Amino acid sequence: MPRHVKKRSRKTGAPPGTLMHIGERKAETTKITIIDYDEGALQEKQVQNIEECFPFKAVPTVTWINVDGIHEVEILEKLGSCYGLHPLILEDILNTDQRPKVEDLGDYLYVVLRMLSLNETRSEIQSEQVSLVLGRNFVISFQEREGDVFDPIRERLRGKKGRIRTMGADYLAYALVDVVVDNYFAILEKFGDKIEALEGDLIASPTSKTLHAIHALKREMIFLRKFVWPLREVISSMERAESSLIKKETTIYLRDVHDHTIQVIDTIETFREMMSGMLDTYLTSISNKMNEVMKVLTIIATIFIPLSFIAGVYGMNFEFMPETRWHWGYFAVLFFMFATGLLMLILFRKKKWL
Amino acid sequence: MPRHVKKRSRKTGAPPGTLMHIGERKAETTKITIIDYDEGALQEKQVQNIEECFPFKAVPTVTWINVDGIHEVEILEKLGSCYGLHPLILEDILNTDQRPKVEDLGDYLYVVLRMLSLNETRSEIQSEQVSLVLGRNFVISFQEREGDVFDPIRERLRGKKGRIRTMGADYLAYALVDVVVDNYFAILEKFGDKIEALEGDLIASPTSKTLHAIHALKREMIFLRKFVWPLREVISSMERAESSLIKKETTIYLRDVHDHTIQVIDTIETFREMMSGMLDTYLTSISNKMNEVMKVLTIIATIFIPLSFIAGVYGMNFEFMPETRWHWGYFAVLFFMFATGLLMLILFRKKKWL
Amino acid sequence: MPRHVKKRSRKTGAPPGTLMHIGERKAETTKITIIDYDEGALQEKQVQNIEECFPFKAVPTVTWINVDGIHEVEILEKLGSCYGLHPLILEDILNTDQRPKVEDLGDYLYVVLRMLSLNETRSEIQSEQVSLVLGRNFVISFQEREGDVFDPIRERLRGKKGRIRTMGADYLAYALVDVVVDNYFAILEKFGDKIEALEGDLIASPTSKTLHAIHALKREMIFLRKFVWPLREVISSMERAESSLIKKETTIYLRDVHDHTIQVIDTIETFREMMSGMLDTYLTSISNKMNEVMKVLTIIATIFIPLSFIAGVYGMNFEFMPETRWHWGYFAVLFFMFATGLLMLILFRKKKWL
Amino acid sequence: MPRHVKKRSRKTGAPPGTLMHIGERKAETTKITIIDYDEGALQEKQVQNIEECFPFKAVPTVTWINVDGIHEVEILEKLGSCYGLHPLILEDILNTDQRPKVEDLGDYLYVVLRMLSLNETRSEIQSEQVSLVLGRNFVISFQEREGDVFDPIRERLRGKKGRIRTMGADYLAYALVDVVVDNYFAILEKFGDKIEALEGDLIASPTSKTLHAIHALKREMIFLRKFVWPLREVISSMERAESSLIKKETTIYLRDVHDHTIQVIDTIETFREMMSGMLDTYLTSISNKMNEVMKVLTIIATIFIPLSFIAGVYGMNFEFMPETRWHWGYFAVLFFMFATGLLMLILFRKKKWL
Amino acid sequence: MPRHVKKRSRKTGAPPGTLMHIGERKAETTKITIIDYDEGALQEKQVQNIEECFPFKAVPTVTWINVDGIHEVEILEKLGSCYGLHPLILEDILNTDQRPKVEDLGDYLYVVLRMLSLNETRSEIQSEQVSLVLGRNFVISFQEREGDVFDPIRERLRGKKGRIRTMGADYLAYALVDVVVDNYFAILEKFGDKIEALEGDLIASPTSKTLHAIHALKREMIFLRKFVWPLREVISSMERAESSLIKKETTIYLRDVHDHTIQVIDTIETFREMMSGMLDTYLTSISNKMNEVMKVLTIIATIFIPLSFIAGVYGMNFEFMPETRWHWGYFAVLFFMFATGLLMLILFRKKKWL
Repeated sequence: MPRHVKKRSRKTGAPPGTLMHIGERKAETTKITIIDYDEGALQEKQVQNIEECFPFKAVPTVTWINVDGIHEVEILEKLGSCYGLHPLILEDILNTDQRPKVEDLGDYLYVVLRMLSLNETRSEIQSEQVSLVLGRNFVISFQEREGDVFDPIRERLRGKKGRIRTMGADYLAYALVDVVVDNYFAILEKFGDKIEALEGDLIASPTSKTLHAIHALKREMIFLRKFVWPLREVISSMERAESSLIKKETTIYLRDVHDHTIQVIDTIETFREMMSGMLDTYLTSISNKMNEVMKVLTIIATIFIPLSFIAGVYGMNFEFMPETRWHWGYFAVLFFMFATGLLMLILFRKKKWL
Repeated sequence: MPRHVKKRSRKTGAPPGTLMHIGERKAETTKITIIDYDEGALQEKQVQNIEECFPFKAVPTVTWINVDGIHEVEILEKLGSCYGLHPLILEDILNTDQRPKVEDLGDYLYVVLRMLSLNETRSEIQSEQVSLVLGRNFVISFQEREGDVFDPIRERLRGKKGRIRTMGADYLAYALVDVVVDNYFAILEKFGDKIEALEGDLIASPTSKTLHAIHALKREMIFLRKFVWPLREVISSMERAESSLIKKETTIYLRDVHDHTIQVIDTIETFREMMSGMLDTYLTSISNKMNEVMKVLTIIATIFIPLSFIAGVYGMNFEFMPETRWHWGYFAVLFFMFATGLLMLILFRKKKWL
Repeated sequence: MPRHVKKRSRKTGAPPGTLMHIGERKAETTKITIIDYDEGALQEKQVQNIEECFPFKAVPTVTWINVDGIHEVEILEKLGSCYGLHPLILEDILNTDQRPKVEDLGDYLYVVLRMLSLNETRSEIQSEQVSLVLGRNFVISFQEREGDVFDPIRERLRGKKGRIRTMGADYLAYALVDVVVDNYFAILEKFGDKIEALEGDLIASPTSKTLHAIHALKREMIFLRKFVWPLREVISSMERAESSLIKKETTIYLRDVHDHTIQVIDTIETFREMMSGMLDTYLTSISNKMNEVMKVLTIIATIFIPLSFIAGVYGMNFEFMPETRWHWGYFAVLFFMFATGLLMLILFRKKKWL
Repeated sequence: MPRHVKKRSRKTGAPPGTLMHIGERKAETTKITIIDYDEGALQEKQVQNIEECFPFKAVPTVTWINVDGIHEVEILEKLGSCYGLHPLILEDILNTDQRPKVEDLGDYLYVVLRMLSLNETRSEIQSEQVSLVLGRNFVISFQEREGDVFDPIRERLRGKKGRIRTMGADYLAYALVDVVVDNYFAILEKFGDKIEALEGDLIASPTSKTLHAIHALKREMIFLRKFVWPLREVISSMERAESSLIKKETTIYLRDVHDHTIQVIDTIETFREMMSGMLDTYLTSISNKMNEVMKVLTIIATIFIPLSFIAGVYGMNFEFMPETRWHWGYFAVLFFMFATGLLMLILFRKKKWL
Repeated sequence: MPRHVKKRSRKTGAPPGTLMHIGERKAETTKITIIDYDEGALQEKQVQNIEECFPFKAVPTVTWINVDGIHEVEILEKLGSCYGLHPLILEDILNTDQRPKVEDLGDYLYVVLRMLSLNETRSEIQSEQVSLVLGRNFVISFQEREGDVFDPIRERLRGKKGRIRTMGADYLAYALVDVVVDNYFAILEKFGDKIEALEGDLIASPTSKTLHAIHALKREMIFLRKFVWPLREVISSMERAESSLIKKETTIYLRDVHDHTIQVIDTIETFREMMSGMLDTYLTSISNKMNEVMKVLTIIATIFIPLSFIAGVYGMNFEFMPETRWHWGYFAVLFFMFATGLLMLILFRKKKWL
């Protein structure tokens, strides 16, 4: 549950733009790395002091400042005042329960994404807020914890792979968004495997454990969907290139991410429908089993209760019971019982209960 | 139920603009406070006589008139005629079952909000109507009862915290809306805690009390949703700044409240989906228990009914029953019964009923 | 059912504009009243002959012609040809199964409303068609039966209450629509009371009568909703003032009715959701009861069936049954039975069946 | 099922515009009738040879060519080449599984309608495709089989009833659409009667036959809805008069049909909701009956199983059973049994099981 | 499941435009055929070397290059660089889990379709990606495996059937899309047959196999729908002719395919609704059977349990039981038992349980 509602109420009544970190503190220290590049050169350094970032604002090359760990409010404040970030944006970066959104502040775009990862042991999706600030010649990215998800981008930058070094800051921002969205496919694949496994279980031997697993998966889907749905609109509004910060030639790449997002949503919806089907299957298989059990009970009871009654009759202690004195009475009764039982079995077979 | 339908019918046929208080009377007396401020100075006073408010209309400073308790119709009438409020607006202020809305009357904006609070003992959401009138240089707020929800704003005004003293009446109106919406997060957090507790109960030992709690929570959600959904549209139409009363620089703040509203709605929807899942879980766990009970009954009955029949047979009083005279007949029958029972147990195990 | 489909098929193939009254005949005679007024004077008379209405067409004062009972087709025809009503409009007035709509014919607006009333004995909503024709300086209203719903308007006209005498025909039309919509609140309040009563029943002792009441209420809601939903669009399109017949200053009043309509719809939707919740509660409470019954059966049966079997064993008539000869055999068996029963009870308690 | 998918696959890969009749052949021969009229004169003739239709193309009067039976492809081809119909339009006329649509080809409008009729014996809706081609001064209508549904129009033409003779081809097309839509009301009335009858059955004595009837009706509703929904859009797009073929004065008549269509859709939706309610009622009444049955079983079993056990105990053959020797032992036991039974009955009554 | 999520994650972090085949390798070798034609001449050849395609780019005739098997990345790269395809487009061609879409790249349109086929043995829909690139005077089509679905088009080209030889590349693209969509009807027909068969089974004798078949069919429907829904938008955006590549006269043909797509979607939705109804029917028929079983059990038990009790009473071994000594006691008891049984049967009949 704490996954769904963060303790935002602590801030009720505080003036807007009050900087206060909301959410779990996930990183020990704040780690800031700078990559500054153009087609020709690339400079990379880890920064001890936030002031080291400031000179990069003036250079014409593309600067990527990556901040891991956002609990140190004063670092953010300094960075914000240097790069001219609005207090409300800084507040949004700190409030780690944002839904994906994009805001056009004129001089820069602010993009909120959710990085998702699957906690394998608890089968729970964990979500981390990734904030991007895209300016004319810089991208600042904020992650809640240190992660290696952006490493492929770093590799591509260092290795001059693809066109990333020849394009501007907007392409860098696109690449960061792309790598986050690509990550969703990995999670979906794992979910797909789980669903496949559960489907096998359902056909083989559905237990209440299967049911709990389906319900749990369904809940994770609600969670997943909550974070992916708004993303579609975010990327689509970036793609419509309302801001001059995003160049024409980057648009086609954004359209590509947009397609991926729709594919992710499609798959989530398909999974949801499949899981509804699986729940139905489970419930009917349970009720089928119940019916089978009831039938057995009914057959046993309807055969033996009347027979027991007959036995009971001849167990009565009346002094004058003529049948009991007949020599073959016992066997006659046994035969009669047998015949009655057989008749009932035939009847059941005709009624298709057997 | 009285929460859902107010006795509005008392007014059927009355001409529009007829001032009559509809709803519960929640405050003893009407309490009016005025805060008049600009960047330099702030004047605050509690008003005995409504006429004291009138001079503030002419001053260029921002005036905030807060009215607690709206049952005294004549006070409203005087205030309305001084500040030029349309009779229909006054009527809306008095009819406390409005849904959130915004109306642009040209000279002023009229905003209806719902202040929500959680009655902890009865676990019921209570809703109070808050009306705001935003003019060129004044804000009039109407609350049904005295409350401390606007106190943080007063503090910020007095303490010059944030930018509130440097901005106009529109920013004040925004701040009031913001504090109402922030309040929703507190309620959602409490609901989140309740849901978490109920989920624990569901896994540990679901009783019919758990079920009632889920149903009750679900009903509160319907209630909550009814008041929050229209708010989104309200704030979004304020944000689109169709009125010249809302300045460009306040728009970004409204967009922030708008995001918060969407987050509240998102959370409500997630809660609703989770509670549907919980109801499903409850129902299947109940039906699973039922199945378990039925199985035990079936197993006991199908084992012992045939055995009882055998005992019954040898309890018959026929004179000629050869087996009864055999020396080991009794033990043979006991053994046969035991074997039959065992066989059935093995059969059940094979059918996975045990 | 006749409430849902009227015998419209009688007219299949007839040319459009064929005047034929479709629906039940609800009034004995047609009663026509005229109120002609401006700010200064008011003239009111009951009309025997339809031709008496014609002179009012030319006068500049506002004329309100109210027709109660619409089965006399020739009266309608004459009125129509005098006031220039299109044959299709006359046809719509006569076909009393119209859904609410507004049609702009250039010279006049045609508005269809549904007046609803609650038949208390059968708990059924009854619906009557009210047609309004709004011209430059006249309003013609058609009701299926004589009713007192418009009386408050007449009072306001006579008593010069509110602004109705100072405003034009469009304000009169608004007042008529308003009084019809206000009427819905009365019905909703009665439904609210019923729902509250049913909720009490549900918690105290749900019977199948409760269930039928919920289902019946639900059906009335379908009915109610069918008539109120289109009204929203009707009033909203009147409010958008596409026609020059509706003056700017009346628009704000229409917006007020529009708000009321949305409130009615909101309440209907809330009621529907609440009744779905009540049905769920009923069903689970029934299934809980069933479970309880089943548990009792199972406990009794699983305790006594094995015990009966033991008694049956010692009731067998074998000649050699050593235990039967033991002196304390009987009491030993009794004790064994008692112990077995107790053990089972303990087991059940542990399994939480008791 | 053949109602839902026609053997369209026979044509896969054929070039577009390939004329091939898809659907059942419903008429023996093709029957072509021509009515040519203006305000003054009317000429009507049945045509043996399709070439007889060609001269009418040039005349300024309105020509209505009605074709019953569309399986003779070559007739269609000739007619098409004379009146300039696009091959794709001819193909659509022949493929009788079209959904309602309108296509504006510039020189003419092509309208597809579904004529519905109720097969009373099988309670199944049967659907026939009616195609209309509306040109400047002609209307060509295609029906799958000879029908009398257009007879009232012929009567009105011959008898100069209404304004049909004074208006153009567009009014004729409207009249044909109108008569088809009016027909839907007849079907809805029949369905309404069926639903009413079923509701009566549901309250009196629901059997599984009732259930099947509801399910069957629901399926017919799916079918009905499928054909009526798109009609709304069709007529609304004709009404918007995008084509110059439809004159201003006909628009108001189309709006009238549009209203009728919405009324039909409304009624279908209401029926669907009512039938969902009826299914719910059926299911709960069944489960209520089941509960009643279970209760009886439980009461009988829980009373007699313990009593039988007591009887069993005293039926044991132990040599030393002191009670059996008491003189009043038998009656004491009988009384004890009676008391136990009575106690249980009282308990059940208190638990409200009786 | 592998049908739903392809191993796209292998590419996470790779730069966009990285060419890597994602999906199963379905064809042994890549087979490339070229058909180059205008109204007068047609040249057809199978190509060994991809370079043979390049000269056709310059010729004014329409060139259709069909590529079967897309796993050889280098062939695609060469073709792409010759015809100026964007790397992202090449990537999309290789990633065979695309949903249908159309992209306008200015010089060419890129269309993704899904070719569907029904694996008869496993009753599973198999989907293959078909990519079309439509340039000024060429169409390049990519299929995952060799297929004969485009053969009818080849026949029409060779045989000059229809207008295909006289129209441009856009008409060829239309024809390819059309043949893919026509194919869906074949699948729907097969599904229709299956549903019909299942409906028969449902009425005759529903087994759990029927249920599994319905569930399986429902899942295939989810799958089918996923691929057809987006197609509607694809064709509709092609039809709107935003690109100059699609000529006016081809638009009407695209509108035709658009109609077909809507018809396919309609049928899928109808099937889905029918299958929901079938599931409901199954469940109620199962629960009806259960009820019948329970009734039999109850009747047997409630008749014989009391009778057995009576027998048990007279089986008690009390020394003083006066009735046992009466001469007709035995027969009196037998008669009493018979009467009790009969009475109960009459009671059951009155309660309509029999």
